Amino acid sequence: MQSVFASKTAKKLDPYVPGEQPQHSRLIKLNTNENPYPPSPKVKSAIESKLDRLRLYPDPESTELRNAIAKRHHESFCKENVFVGNGSDEVLGFCFMAFFDPDSPIIFPDITYSFYPVYAQLCSIPYRLVPLNEDYSIDVSGMKQKAGGVIFANPNAPTSIALSVSEVEEIVKAHEDCLVIVDEAYVEFGDESVVLLTKKYKNLLVVKTFSKSHALAGLRIGYAIGEESLIQTLSDVKNSFNSYPLDCLAQAAALACIQDDKYCNQIIKKVCATRERCCDELVKLGFSVQKSSTNFLFVQHKTVKAEQIMSSLREEGIIVRRFKNERINNCLRITVGTDYEMDILLEELKEILCAG
Amino acid sequence: MQSVFASKTAKKLDPYVPGEQPQHSRLIKLNTNENPYPPSPKVKSAIESKLDRLRLYPDPESTELRNAIAKRHHESFCKENVFVGNGSDEVLGFCFMAFFDPDSPIIFPDITYSFYPVYAQLCSIPYRLVPLNEDYSIDVSGMKQKAGGVIFANPNAPTSIALSVSEVEEIVKAHEDCLVIVDEAYVEFGDESVVLLTKKYKNLLVVKTFSKSHALAGLRIGYAIGEESLIQTLSDVKNSFNSYPLDCLAQAAALACIQDDKYCNQIIKKVCATRERCCDELVKLGFSVQKSSTNFLFVQHKTVKAEQIMSSLREEGIIVRRFKNERINNCLRITVGTDYEMDILLEELKEILCAG
Repeated sequence: MQSVFASKTAKKLDPYVPGEQPQHSRLIKLNTNENPYPPSPKVKSAIESKLDRLRLYPDPESTELRNAIAKRHHESFCKENVFVGNGSDEVLGFCFMAFFDPDSPIIFPDITYSFYPVYAQLCSIPYRLVPLNEDYSIDVSGMKQKAGGVIFANPNAPTSIALSVSEVEEIVKAHEDCLVIVDEAYVEFGDESVVLLTKKYKNLLVVKTFSKSHALAGLRIGYAIGEESLIQTLSDVKNSFNSYPLDCLAQAAALACIQDDKYCNQIIKKVCATRERCCDELVKLGFSVQKSSTNFLFVQHKTVKAEQIMSSLREEGIIVRRFKNERINNCLRITVGTDYEMDILLEELKEILCAG
Repeated sequence: MQSVFASKTAKKLDPYVPGEQPQHSRLIKLNTNENPYPPSPKVKSAIESKLDRLRLYPDPESTELRNAIAKRHHESFCKENVFVGNGSDEVLGFCFMAFFDPDSPIIFPDITYSFYPVYAQLCSIPYRLVPLNEDYSIDVSGMKQKAGGVIFANPNAPTSIALSVSEVEEIVKAHEDCLVIVDEAYVEFGDESVVLLTKKYKNLLVVKTFSKSHALAGLRIGYAIGEESLIQTLSDVKNSFNSYPLDCLAQAAALACIQDDKYCNQIIKKVCATRERCCDELVKLGFSVQKSSTNFLFVQHKTVKAEQIMSSLREEGIIVRRFKNERINNCLRITVGTDYEMDILLEELKEILCAG
């Protein structure tokens, strides 16, 4: 029930609903695209080294972390090209406040990260939806239409499908007079990042996260890379809302991860190998499976309804995700877990589909 | 430099400037009201027990923590009366979005937490300032004037002066038709909380933090207590911005602190004892010192300018805070440190004032 004191903005909100996060269960959790492997073992000692600083405010500028992120992407980047926040969700929220206006409709695909329309509502930003192509790929020419701002996930979610760098560049070039935000939450699992294009295009901002590839969903670290004045504007918005959204342990953990790229690449490779193997198995079971450039699979069974598969899996202790959007409500999004978890999933699917 | 793509909102921002947070220095830091003592020793093991969960998203509802906070305040509270966020700064930011409207000016004291006008700007909320009385206390009758919303810190910052529970109640009663937010960041250091008044008044929301009394500034945990529908509205706003602003380690640490109230009360008592002793010494040195109900002292020297004292202290490695607001720009806000730190401060002040 909403408060009688709710603001006009609050009254009209239809909040985002995150995937279920059971805290004390033995479920096989394939519903929120977490990495099945733990983060770099260096994270633990990095956190322990900061335990005597908990009484002090963290660095509001996250200087060390921003420097490390910059250099990880290219020697030509510096901390002034990097904004960090409390997960890429907060970074995206700040982007809507910082770059989009209530009198200038933005565009995004009709099927994409379902938080975008929620941010738009919170910030009173009108938007137009650009329908995906029939094959669920992003309609590049549709995304080139005149707009007050552009945002899309690449690879897209929950479809798992990626645009190429040159396709993204085409969209960015078409929007010289407004900002294009590319949300690369999943890019490390198979697609090429467009981060370096921010050197060439002042109207491109790339948003990324430590939650998936770096296995740090529990610590909430996201970032944006772009031209300096974009970062300054994001920073102004952040400093008008919360000076220190990244706590001292999260900053230390992210830094440790960045400094252990080798480990990170290993777990990404493992996830991708499991994904490819499962993809083949799922096809054998009668699923159509989109070509995934992410750590999840977007699937639809030829005969059995998604809703039925999902609830049968749930009974067996496996949770996956389904979305309400009409175009995809017969599809499932399945996070790639460990080989062990995926073997159990495949076994259960076999039983469910035979029974069905 | 601001981006050419900055939104109209972003263009007009004048962000909050937090106190300096040197990360690797030996300065005596009396500038941002941190607790000089570490948090409960139970925090360490609580954090360590969660290190194997970093790959997973935290509980977006912070259920355990909200339950514990509710019960800590009174058995009649439940988690539905508690909203938690990334420091009380984020909680306050959500409050401005959730309860105040652009067509209805709010009121707050002319001298108070300087983040309030910044939130107002971000959310396009107009405001009227209610001047403090000559003695820097909040003008209770001025705060009863008709408004679209009310917010003030109690004890107030940076003045350190508290209103009594009955004075706060008077303000709340005068505003039946709008929300009154009382920011109790410092209340544990000497004032009585008005949390229990939220049972009686549906238009009262109390905001609190783990940063000061619980010595957890580094982990960013704040909360609000009030009637259920107020909390639901705050939650809708949060879920339209960032599903998981409190990471898993912060949730665990705050829970451990709550469960060790005895330790927390001990460090609060120590800070208060040091404060009283220093207050007397500062008076002897020619300062006028406001009666503090907080973990800081708000002082003005009878002859020597605040700016000069501050820069002389800085040369000796001691940082304190001064604010630009004209009415108080000859005052200093000095955080109460350990006895050892305060003895060094007092020694340096003696030297500076004799030299001056």
